[in-house]
Amino acid sequence: MKTRFVLIETSHAGNVGGVARAMKVMGFDDLVLVRPRWANVLRREETIQRASGANDVLANARIVDTLDGALDGITHLCATAMTPRDFGPTTRSPRQHLPTLVAPDAPPQAGVAFLFGSERFGMANEDVYRCHMCLSIPTAPNFGSLNLAAAVQLIAYEWREALGGFALPPSGTPEQVPADARAVAGVLDHWQQALIDVGFLDPAAPKKLIPRLNQLLNRAQLAEEEIHILRGVARAVQQMAAKAKR
Amino acid sequence: MKTRFVLIETSHAGNVGGVARAMKVMGFDDLVLVRPRWANVLRREETIQRASGANDVLANARIVDTLDGALDGITHLCATAMTPRDFGPTTRSPRQHLPTLVAPDAPPQAGVAFLFGSERFGMANEDVYRCHMCLSIPTAPNFGSLNLAAAVQLIAYEWREALGGFALPPSGTPEQVPADARAVAGVLDHWQQALIDVGFLDPAAPKKLIPRLNQLLNRAQLAEEEIHILRGVARAVQQMAAKAKR
Repeated sequence: MKTRFVLIETSHAGNVGGVARAMKVMGFDDLVLVRPRWANVLRREETIQRASGANDVLANARIVDTLDGALDGITHLCATAMTPRDFGPTTRSPRQHLPTLVAPDAPPQAGVAFLFGSERFGMANEDVYRCHMCLSIPTAPNFGSLNLAAAVQLIAYEWREALGGFALPPSGTPEQVPADARAVAGVLDHWQQALIDVGFLDPAAPKKLIPRLNQLLNRAQLAEEEIHILRGVARAVQQMAAKAKR
Repeated sequence: MKTRFVLIETSHAGNVGGVARAMKVMGFDDLVLVRPRWANVLRREETIQRASGANDVLANARIVDTLDGALDGITHLCATAMTPRDFGPTTRSPRQHLPTLVAPDAPPQAGVAFLFGSERFGMANEDVYRCHMCLSIPTAPNFGSLNLAAAVQLIAYEWREALGGFALPPSGTPEQVPADARAVAGVLDHWQQALIDVGFLDPAAPKKLIPRLNQLLNRAQLAEEEIHILRGVARAVQQMAAKAKR
C-alpha cells in the first residue's frame, strides 16, 4: 500500500529534516510539503543536518501549493490533530485505528496519507474535514505538545508495526543452552563443600543457606557454560583452603 | 514505579531539549545525564528551544559523573542499542519486553531506567553489560539511524502504553445517533421520486440505480441528522422540478 506523509505549512526547516529521517528509519520515502514556509526548505542546511543521511527522502520530496496536489493515488486520509474538531472525522489513537486498515476484512486501500499541520497552529479545519479519520497520539493531560518530527516518528512506527513490522537484528549473544537440573544440583553440592572448607557454612547448623542459593540459581536460569564457571570457582576456593591448612 | 531516562555522554544540546520534551509529553520527568559534552547543557539556548516548554524536566535533571551515580533506586535497567553485544543481555523490542515488566505475575520493580548512549557511538559495552535487558527498536534494515530524541520518544510512548496509557481528549464531534433502517428506506424512496421528477431515473428502466444508492447509504452508516439533510435536498429538488414544469 502506498504510504505518504504530507506536511502542511511547516515552518521549521529542521523539522522537515527530522521528518525525513523519522520516515526513512521506518522504511517510508514518500514526502509531500504543502506551502512550506521556505521554498528552498529541502536544500537548507538545518534540513540536511537533521535528516542525517535520509537524503533520498528529501531528494524525492515534492512541494505543492494545495492539499489536493498532494493526494493523487491516496484513498484513505488520516488527519493528525491534538484537538478534535466539530464535524471532523472520528478520533482514534494510531494503535486503535491503523491495524484496522490492514485487517483481512478491510476494504483494500490504494494509498494512505498522514497529514500534519503547522507547528504553531496544527491543521486547518477544512483540511481535517477532508480526512477519513483523525489520529490523536495519547499524551500527558497537562502537556500534549509533541514535536512535529516526534509525531511523525510515532505514527510511522505504529503504521510500520501495523504493516507487519521489521525484524530485530540478529542477536550478538550466542544462544545459551540452559543447564539441566542435575547439573545445577552438582554445582550446589560443590559450592556447599567449598563453603564448608572455607568456614562460611557450618554443617552442624546449616540454616537455610543451601536452599537460598538453590533458589537464586534457579531464578538465574543457569546456562551450561556457567555451570563450568561456578564449579571452577568452587574448585579454586577448595584448593586455596587446602593450601591454607597445610 | 519510578521511571528514569539516563543519557550517557550526549553531545548535542538540542537533543537533550528534545528528550525532555519527549519525556514530558508521555508524563515522565526524571532525567539524568552522565558526563554530557557540555557542562551547562541544561541551560544552553538550543536545549531550551527544543525542550519547548518542558522546562521543569530540565530544571529537575541531574548531571553525574558515573553511570552508578544515575542508578539509585533503580532495580531494572534497559539498555538501548542498535547492535547487540556478545555477552550482553537478551535483546527484545520495546513492545515485546515492556508489558512483561507490569504483568500481574512480574516481580515488583522499584524503578526502571532506560539508558541511551552517545549520538555517535551508542552505548559502551560495559554499560550494556550492566543491564537486565537490551531494547532494540525495529527499524528499516538499510537505515536504522534513529535520532536520540526520537528513540526516547518511542520508548517513552511504549512504556506509557504498557503502564496503561493516557486517554484521548474528549471528541469535539457530538456522538451521532445512527439512523434506523426504516429511516434509510424513507430517504431512498424520497430520492427515488425526486430522481424521477428531474428525469435522471426512468421508472420504466430503473436498472440498478436504487440498489446502488442503497448500498452506498448503508456503507456510509447514516446518522439521524443526515436523514433530515438528505430528505431536505430531495424536497428542494422536487420543488424546483415542479416549478420548471409550470
